Amino acid sequence: MTHGNAPNTPRSTLVVTAHAGDFVWRAGGAIALAAARGEKVTIACLTYGERGESAKAWRAGKSLEEIKGIRRGEAEAAAAALGAEVVFFDAGDYPLTVTPELTDRLVAVYRAAQPDVVLTHPLDDPYNGDHPAAARMALDARVLAQAIGYPAEGEIIGAPPVFFFEPHQPEMCGFKPQVLLDISEVWETKRKAMECLAAQQHLWDYYTDLAVRRGVQLKRNAGPNLGLAHKTMAEAYMRPYPQVTGELA
Amino acid sequence: MTHGNAPNTPRSTLVVTAHAGDFVWRAGGAIALAAARGEKVTIACLTYGERGESAKAWRAGKSLEEIKGIRRGEAEAAAAALGAEVVFFDAGDYPLTVTPELTDRLVAVYRAAQPDVVLTHPLDDPYNGDHPAAARMALDARVLAQAIGYPAEGEIIGAPPVFFFEPHQPEMCGFKPQVLLDISEVWETKRKAMECLAAQQHLWDYYTDLAVRRGVQLKRNAGPNLGLAHKTMAEAYMRPYPQVTGELA
Amino acid sequence: MTHGNAPNTPRSTLVVTAHAGDFVWRAGGAIALAAARGEKVTIACLTYGERGESAKAWRAGKSLEEIKGIRRGEAEAAAAALGAEVVFFDAGDYPLTVTPELTDRLVAVYRAAQPDVVLTHPLDDPYNGDHPAAARMALDARVLAQAIGYPAEGEIIGAPPVFFFEPHQPEMCGFKPQVLLDISEVWETKRKAMECLAAQQHLWDYYTDLAVRRGVQLKRNAGPNLGLAHKTMAEAYMRPYPQVTGELA
Amino acid sequence: MTHGNAPNTPRSTLVVTAHAGDFVWRAGGAIALAAARGEKVTIACLTYGERGESAKAWRAGKSLEEIKGIRRGEAEAAAAALGAEVVFFDAGDYPLTVTPELTDRLVAVYRAAQPDVVLTHPLDDPYNGDHPAAARMALDARVLAQAIGYPAEGEIIGAPPVFFFEPHQPEMCGFKPQVLLDISEVWETKRKAMECLAAQQHLWDYYTDLAVRRGVQLKRNAGPNLGLAHKTMAEAYMRPYPQVTGELA
Amino acid sequence: MTHGNAPNTPRSTLVVTAHAGDFVWRAGGAIALAAARGEKVTIACLTYGERGESAKAWRAGKSLEEIKGIRRGEAEAAAAALGAEVVFFDAGDYPLTVTPELTDRLVAVYRAAQPDVVLTHPLDDPYNGDHPAAARMALDARVLAQAIGYPAEGEIIGAPPVFFFEPHQPEMCGFKPQVLLDISEVWETKRKAMECLAAQQHLWDYYTDLAVRRGVQLKRNAGPNLGLAHKTMAEAYMRPYPQVTGELA
Amino acid sequence: MTHGNAPNTPRSTLVVTAHAGDFVWRAGGAIALAAARGEKVTIACLTYGERGESAKAWRAGKSLEEIKGIRRGEAEAAAAALGAEVVFFDAGDYPLTVTPELTDRLVAVYRAAQPDVVLTHPLDDPYNGDHPAAARMALDARVLAQAIGYPAEGEIIGAPPVFFFEPHQPEMCGFKPQVLLDISEVWETKRKAMECLAAQQHLWDYYTDLAVRRGVQLKRNAGPNLGLAHKTMAEAYMRPYPQVTGELA
Repeated sequence: MTHGNAPNTPRSTLVVTAHAGDFVWRAGGAIALAAARGEKVTIACLTYGERGESAKAWRAGKSLEEIKGIRRGEAEAAAAALGAEVVFFDAGDYPLTVTPELTDRLVAVYRAAQPDVVLTHPLDDPYNGDHPAAARMALDARVLAQAIGYPAEGEIIGAPPVFFFEPHQPEMCGFKPQVLLDISEVWETKRKAMECLAAQQHLWDYYTDLAVRRGVQLKRNAGPNLGLAHKTMAEAYMRPYPQVTGELA
Repeated sequence: MTHGNAPNTPRSTLVVTAHAGDFVWRAGGAIALAAARGEKVTIACLTYGERGESAKAWRAGKSLEEIKGIRRGEAEAAAAALGAEVVFFDAGDYPLTVTPELTDRLVAVYRAAQPDVVLTHPLDDPYNGDHPAAARMALDARVLAQAIGYPAEGEIIGAPPVFFFEPHQPEMCGFKPQVLLDISEVWETKRKAMECLAAQQHLWDYYTDLAVRRGVQLKRNAGPNLGLAHKTMAEAYMRPYPQVTGELA
Repeated sequence: MTHGNAPNTPRSTLVVTAHAGDFVWRAGGAIALAAARGEKVTIACLTYGERGESAKAWRAGKSLEEIKGIRRGEAEAAAAALGAEVVFFDAGDYPLTVTPELTDRLVAVYRAAQPDVVLTHPLDDPYNGDHPAAARMALDARVLAQAIGYPAEGEIIGAPPVFFFEPHQPEMCGFKPQVLLDISEVWETKRKAMECLAAQQHLWDYYTDLAVRRGVQLKRNAGPNLGLAHKTMAEAYMRPYPQVTGELA
Repeated sequence: MTHGNAPNTPRSTLVVTAHAGDFVWRAGGAIALAAARGEKVTIACLTYGERGESAKAWRAGKSLEEIKGIRRGEAEAAAAALGAEVVFFDAGDYPLTVTPELTDRLVAVYRAAQPDVVLTHPLDDPYNGDHPAAARMALDARVLAQAIGYPAEGEIIGAPPVFFFEPHQPEMCGFKPQVLLDISEVWETKRKAMECLAAQQHLWDYYTDLAVRRGVQLKRNAGPNLGLAHKTMAEAYMRPYPQVTGELA
Repeated sequence: MTHGNAPNTPRSTLVVTAHAGDFVWRAGGAIALAAARGEKVTIACLTYGERGESAKAWRAGKSLEEIKGIRRGEAEAAAAALGAEVVFFDAGDYPLTVTPELTDRLVAVYRAAQPDVVLTHPLDDPYNGDHPAAARMALDARVLAQAIGYPAEGEIIGAPPVFFFEPHQPEMCGFKPQVLLDISEVWETKRKAMECLAAQQHLWDYYTDLAVRRGVQLKRNAGPNLGLAHKTMAEAYMRPYPQVTGELA
Repeated sequence: MTHGNAPNTPRSTLVVTAHAGDFVWRAGGAIALAAARGEKVTIACLTYGERGESAKAWRAGKSLEEIKGIRRGEAEAAAAALGAEVVFFDAGDYPLTVTPELTDRLVAVYRAAQPDVVLTHPLDDPYNGDHPAAARMALDARVLAQAIGYPAEGEIIGAPPVFFFEPHQPEMCGFKPQVLLDISEVWETKRKAMECLAAQQHLWDYYTDLAVRRGVQLKRNAGPNLGLAHKTMAEAYMRPYPQVTGELA
């Protein structure tokens, strides 16, 4: 295979999200871990969540552009705290609509990022249609970016594994944890990134509690001799494609 | 956690199967890989498959004891070829029945083996009820062996990951590959182990073709820069419990 | 929460359907019950069913406009019989297409109706793509109408419970009754509304039989001491969202 | 129908659980609510959880009988705190085995209790086989108790609705919340009952956090004008049988 | 293959049911069709339904033996009307329990009947555990009867296709019609057989309505040029195993 | 019913595929069988697969038009070998987009072909979004073509049965074989058609192995007395709609 990454290129992670805050609550630990290993992380943020996830600002009488600016600033600060780069598509939320144009823009990001790992939303969410729309385009663009015949700049990509991060109401979205990621060592970093999202302070403790809960489950599912810390923090993920490995573990 | 394996103990794999041939066709590659890494592999073989999987011998007029002996000899030869140890329970097949006694014997094997990894059948198989019966007992015994209050010899075990290996008609058993294991480097060993099963020669090519097919899928699902050989051979597995990990990959 | 309904406003039900007859066959009992309790019921009828559900009229050589008029008249008579108001969108059927514009028009209806309960089609129907299209837009518009940032007239709405009514071939549409509604006391009203749909006389007895059948199941699932009438008539519904309650019953 | 409950008999709830602590963590709120309404609640506790859920006591060197006594005492105190009566079957845990005899004892409890509501475990739990075993017998006994031909003491029962309470790892047990029960007004009572279970102090905060989380979801799924308190606490349930009702809400 | 049926033997159908009335309501049409084609039909009736499905007789004060006699007589008359032979196992209902002994008796029936087609209950029924128990044994015995090593009289059988007939509450049993069988030409025969079941007169019309309903669906799913009668009556079935065919139709 | 096919018209099969090669690998046997029976087979090929399935040609520096020409030529040769006619839509692949216009063109093909059988892709394929897009339009157009009110040329069609053919990674597409078609007698024809697709020579043996594997399963699921050849070759299909039949077999 003749993909774009040279042998010595650091590994690359691409995160595709619907709204400005999603990557923090749902994948902040995975992003911080990758950054801590010296890898590159690119966040493709399709909208600022300006209409659907900024109720407090609307009630305070802010304008649409002001709200976009606030959300952008918060997301940039959080990305910086995690060690990642964020790209804003400003595609408009509530509803975020699946279009060939937006998918094509994502193909270009895939070819530029040459990701080794892709993170995005699950494909079902009865509480927020923007999330499945983002996921649908993230998956479609990944397949198109693999095709030499698809007319876009850059080298084709391989078939990087995809991970769905956890939605707000997991059981209602068909979300069943298939991977439990130990984020204990970067927990403080994730918490700092959450605290960059000042408008959603009520979620700081909510997602701290979730990390504790997923940590309890991680320990419950860990094999022997793992030497886990007393308080393990974790994030949960699903895999839409099979894991490829050289060893069962 | 105070499980029985000392820090320097080599990793241990436990394979629980219904019939004498199952571990070869379905998990021979995983067993050979573990053995090649210097790990210990124990195969708990609940029956010889003497009634349900020995049609040729019955047609040739062999007695029940003769058939058991033939199957046992073949299985021992195949296990030796793979580098594993096999324990026969002689519990009687067709039907293999779930009982507390048999489950209890399996608990003892778990505590003795202190497995880091467990392999067994999937929980559904409309073509052969012995396979789900073996899987049910393998899962139940794993949970019981974790409890300090369960009255059995030996140290309690941790929560080793479980992998379901591939049944003969995967789509009819709800089998969806979640892990594709690259067995290219031990393929010749697996083929030799299959050839120990003289009575089922018609399956040698069948399972060689399956390994090619799963290898094609492995390459199709592999991330970039994996440097895969031209002809990759693979086995497919499912995970009933979430994967625990420190890195998404 | 500061939703639009004043404390003394009567409860409001919104029914979103694809074709002119759907609300009668599938939810006529629920509508009549709500009206009998003095509540307001608004039916958003996206098309007249002029192409896909008017075969008899086409065979009789009617024009498209004539057929629309006939279907509209029948639906208005049926709605009046049930005690409900019907709004026609005239969006064109066979196929009814999901569009942002049509969804936006539905948001306006939600904000005007401030529904306490929403009824619509299930999300799957391999026999008629218009039904899932209507349901998809009904659900999307409900979520958009909740967002203060969504640019539409009127007060935002809360999160009214949603009920899917029964399709023509329930088992083929993944329809599993989760709620059995006793419509015995309004059965005569529903029957009269059905008889307003003169063009589909063959369905009058069909849906009477269905109500008997669902009534038998209601009795089979009812707790003790319910004092059910000898001949209970019922309608079946699904809930895509969890029930919120202060008492298990 | 001529079931046993006289018209003025207070409503009756039957809770069938595998282990001594289950009714507190999983249904303590529902029990306290029913008791607060003056209803009768009977808890059928099939085992003390002496082997599988008493690791700390085993490590402290207690004997089997001592452990049973401790668990029994804790459960009685918790039941008293909630206002319920608990019946111990002492059927032996890890494994709890489905038998006709145990099912028959449950039939007698059903006929004596004449429940209007039944609570039990869900039918799947890959982490603890005792839970599905208890649920299986609870459901079987409920059906047998309805049959006049089944040879047991007492009046036959009706068809009381069944609710599955939430398991420890809901997503791994196929648990999808279908009912969210507001337990805010009895929260302090549930907390006190949890604190009766001294051996499992690490779970007090864990299940407090869960109640907060389910409360957040309750508010997210509640219709308008519900006047919910700022901090709503909730429990989640599933319904294996359809809800029977006279009004959609 | 050297199965027992000689080339000129008429085709054979085996029906395995839990209770005396099941074969009439659920498969009477299929049985009458086979008999009308000159084929042999054997009904293995595991119980008389004496405890769980004879409420009226119990209320009338009949004894257990009297009730068995009544049910047996009715079933024999119905089988005669359909043109089938019925074998009673008298295994005891409510609960019917899965045992190796009962399964073994079924193996003998399979080997004697050498069925070309097998009909039985679906594997799930939350309203009546006897039905899944009968189905489980019917499927297990079919597999055991195929094995030359299984110690039972008679020739081994092939792999006859299996059809699950329709339960009383299909949607609650996961029943999705996969085969719609046109029984119009034997409808009068089925109705007469139903009328042999005097104790359950309330079901005569219920199952007539069901046949009409399934007939409507049959016409809705039929290809062109089928020349269907105005009033088509039908029964619905599921296939747990794939259809084997030489032509797609 | 007054559909377009005169009584003596030969049966007609319509195959709707996304890319030029699909009909050969996935349904070549069914097509050859129909042609061998003297029936008419029409293949509606929505794209040439010019972008997504022609990597070798792109690497060789061919232009888009050259690649289309090559693929068209190969597909025409393969169709001729099978005895079918192919219609090219040239709708553009990677991505193939669902549009009302393309669906409408398919309606015209349905009305012209008056199919007795329809073959297309399954509705899920996480590796190639063009396949579900083609299937979605094939199913929608089939329903629209049935409606006398839909404005298109030609007679309305009936309700021909639909079969989904097998995707490349069946388990990942929710593909469970429901029909196993014996293609032994036309195997040589299918192989010749595959060999017309010179650019994909690596797939010739792959799909030969698949036919062997499905043949083994066919024999495993066949009833007695079928007189199957030693080496049976087969194709697998799913049915989205129920089978309509006059005999269970």
